[in-house]
Amino acid sequence: MYEVKIITKFSSAHQLRLYDGKYENLHGHNWGATVIVEAEELDAMGLGIDFVVLREKVDAILSKLDYQNINEVPPFDKLNPSAENIARWLFDRLNADIKTKTVRAKRVEIREMDECGAAYYE
Amino acid sequence: MYEVKIITKFSSAHQLRLYDGKYENLHGHNWGATVIVEAEELDAMGLGIDFVVLREKVDAILSKLDYQNINEVPPFDKLNPSAENIARWLFDRLNADIKTKTVRAKRVEIREMDECGAAYYE
Amino acid sequence: MYEVKIITKFSSAHQLRLYDGKYENLHGHNWGATVIVEAEELDAMGLGIDFVVLREKVDAILSKLDYQNINEVPPFDKLNPSAENIARWLFDRLNADIKTKTVRAKRVEIREMDECGAAYYE
Repeated sequence: MYEVKIITKFSSAHQLRLYDGKYENLHGHNWGATVIVEAEELDAMGLGIDFVVLREKVDAILSKLDYQNINEVPPFDKLNPSAENIARWLFDRLNADIKTKTVRAKRVEIREMDECGAAYYE
Repeated sequence: MYEVKIITKFSSAHQLRLYDGKYENLHGHNWGATVIVEAEELDAMGLGIDFVVLREKVDAILSKLDYQNINEVPPFDKLNPSAENIARWLFDRLNADIKTKTVRAKRVEIREMDECGAAYYE
Repeated sequence: MYEVKIITKFSSAHQLRLYDGKYENLHGHNWGATVIVEAEELDAMGLGIDFVVLREKVDAILSKLDYQNINEVPPFDKLNPSAENIARWLFDRLNADIKTKTVRAKRVEIREMDECGAAYYE
């Protein structure tokens, strides 16, 4: 089995509703995203999925959040914008775009800082 | 499934008993630890486990080793303080503290340097 | 279960045959390699595999590529030198050297840059 991984960034504000502490305040991060796609086989060029194509697709999804207050971007106007929920949102949207019989999102990790993050996988 | 990850550090001396080479000498590292906790579901805030809580629990365990000679800290007075053994020790102690039906330690990695480390998982 | 991980580097040229774009041109990278070996049990010293031994074995294999045009190094004179194919090549060669009943290569990741890479595992 093969995996293709890209790392990208976005800069957004958020606040964690219901949190009893400073994370309830509106604040922001240079967020990091690591996206791993699983491919059961390679194409004629020897690629699972082209890095360039994968990065474009991921960045297109994340452009909804980049330089925004995530709490105002649906579904995060109703769903708490935790790293866990953002990871699942990106995972599901990416899979809706790329999933085939042999290629699929495997794991999406969203980091609020270099030292902490959350991931979603199935 | 969700994962929550934190990265932390500690600075400790150790020596690898029985090693035929320079690693048998007492030396030290800025050690790195990456701890991944698995959560089957999220709480009302959208969290698997709070980063802050997880970091506090991990750092509380690692405080036994930080700025110490690990070879003098039980169980490492009897058990060789390899990255493998330290990873398992941290994994087991963390799980004793946090494990529930839906939340558990998944993988603990201990790095002696940025370029080498060992992990334990079940 | 235990994992031992080392990270290493090599500097090589390559070109991706059949690619419709700039990656078909001969170019180069500071490549990164992350190698994870799985060990079911530890030796008397508490090691899955010695970092030093693992690094020597990986670097010995990668020395075939380091400061070379990978497209001229067999099997990459015939097999496209994608990160995916290089990862599998390293995985297979490493396993041919180290695999025992309880120790085996688990995952090899090859990065063309810090932000993109591909991995092979079984």
